[in-house]
Amino acid sequence: MCQLLGMNCNVPTDICFSFEGFRARGGRTGLHSDGWGIAFFEDQGCRLFLDDKASAESAIAELVRDYPIRSLNVIAHIRKATHGHVALQNTHPFQRELWGRYWVFAHNGELKDFSPTDKGRFRSVGNTDSEAAFCHILNTLQQQYPQQQPTPVELLKSLRTISNGIARHGMFNFLLSNGELLFAYCATDLNYVLRKAPFCTAHLIDEDVSVDFNELTTPDDRVALIATLPLTDNENWAKMARGELLAFHHGRVLARG
Amino acid sequence: MCQLLGMNCNVPTDICFSFEGFRARGGRTGLHSDGWGIAFFEDQGCRLFLDDKASAESAIAELVRDYPIRSLNVIAHIRKATHGHVALQNTHPFQRELWGRYWVFAHNGELKDFSPTDKGRFRSVGNTDSEAAFCHILNTLQQQYPQQQPTPVELLKSLRTISNGIARHGMFNFLLSNGELLFAYCATDLNYVLRKAPFCTAHLIDEDVSVDFNELTTPDDRVALIATLPLTDNENWAKMARGELLAFHHGRVLARG
Repeated sequence: MCQLLGMNCNVPTDICFSFEGFRARGGRTGLHSDGWGIAFFEDQGCRLFLDDKASAESAIAELVRDYPIRSLNVIAHIRKATHGHVALQNTHPFQRELWGRYWVFAHNGELKDFSPTDKGRFRSVGNTDSEAAFCHILNTLQQQYPQQQPTPVELLKSLRTISNGIARHGMFNFLLSNGELLFAYCATDLNYVLRKAPFCTAHLIDEDVSVDFNELTTPDDRVALIATLPLTDNENWAKMARGELLAFHHGRVLARG
Repeated sequence: MCQLLGMNCNVPTDICFSFEGFRARGGRTGLHSDGWGIAFFEDQGCRLFLDDKASAESAIAELVRDYPIRSLNVIAHIRKATHGHVALQNTHPFQRELWGRYWVFAHNGELKDFSPTDKGRFRSVGNTDSEAAFCHILNTLQQQYPQQQPTPVELLKSLRTISNGIARHGMFNFLLSNGELLFAYCATDLNYVLRKAPFCTAHLIDEDVSVDFNELTTPDDRVALIATLPLTDNENWAKMARGELLAFHHGRVLARG
């Protein structure tokens, strides 16, 4: 299995603190050592770092921890291989372009007997169930809305139907973003926390590190953090329900599907 | 204008030496300081580093210089903005998926009155002439070969026709790779060198750095290096002809179009 981390904000924010705890699970405090990846949206662009090494030992992960990339939407993933061998093409997040925007996807879980017969434009490069699911989502969306992106509410409705269909094949927790919205679908384990004023000092579970967000934020800042398991031990993490789909925008829950 | 660097090999090779000279042109020995990017293919996967800072001063460029990523196909680009503002979405190389493979593209030059009216599947995310050209190439290839990738010779033939058409709009030097083949199209400036045994000691033009390839290679290694301007001052760089299209494979020129 794998672990997911997502961030959605109203002002460009760095993920250094949360990433420090998360990456420790990739080979040090956790067993997810078959690669990792992180995608940062900046404006319409996307910076995607992928590595087939354990995140706890990766030079690229050190760069990401030390180099504050500020972003409104981030998706990260550490991998314990189930489907597909350890290789760069099987490393999450996956990225494609649809409607003139980049879309990024990462999955936690395992699908069985999932072989979509899409003849669509999006095809897998690697051989994971996860990338096949991502391509199926995009192919279906593109067939439903060939010309342009629908409204967030229409998108949420379509995504819920597609996701429920895929989830019949096994465990299907995922994060998906187009740089504007961040969607989180929970099959078993996804938790989130909404950080806003008054900010607190947060303490990581996986490392003995604290940060006082009062020193780093302004009163209007809002940050939603979504993770397979809570990353801090002194904040109010909410556990998502099974089958729940949330759309985050500007650090708030915009809609529930 | 911009500068291009490509590498195509028969064994996974790091580009640290060449990249050291190339990145100096991004703000130190050259004026191409509006961002840079580099794509490394590893098996079917692709690692793409993008930065909208000058390569000479970029923390990510330092990582790439110091961290030997071994690859059969590499494309790098340093940018002097002409079309499109300085932003991550306008930073080359651009990446898309076609026929279940990643394709990576970088352009040197400037196109005028180039507004393809494609209704195809590939759309620009940013607003450069370069990304529009890349999408036009992929849309045309996909329309000509909807199901699967044609042979390298068919691909070369199609690419030549498409490229000649785009080149009517201005200066159009580009590098394009699917991780297996590397295509180089020359409008004005592209040079290449084929490194093979017996290897020499090469000396960079932009930095006073030499490397003895005898110490790093085996007698069967072959490396093709393609660049806007030669990177070393003691090797036999060949200048490509105007309108010439080359397909490199395993460090050799596979075909000329």
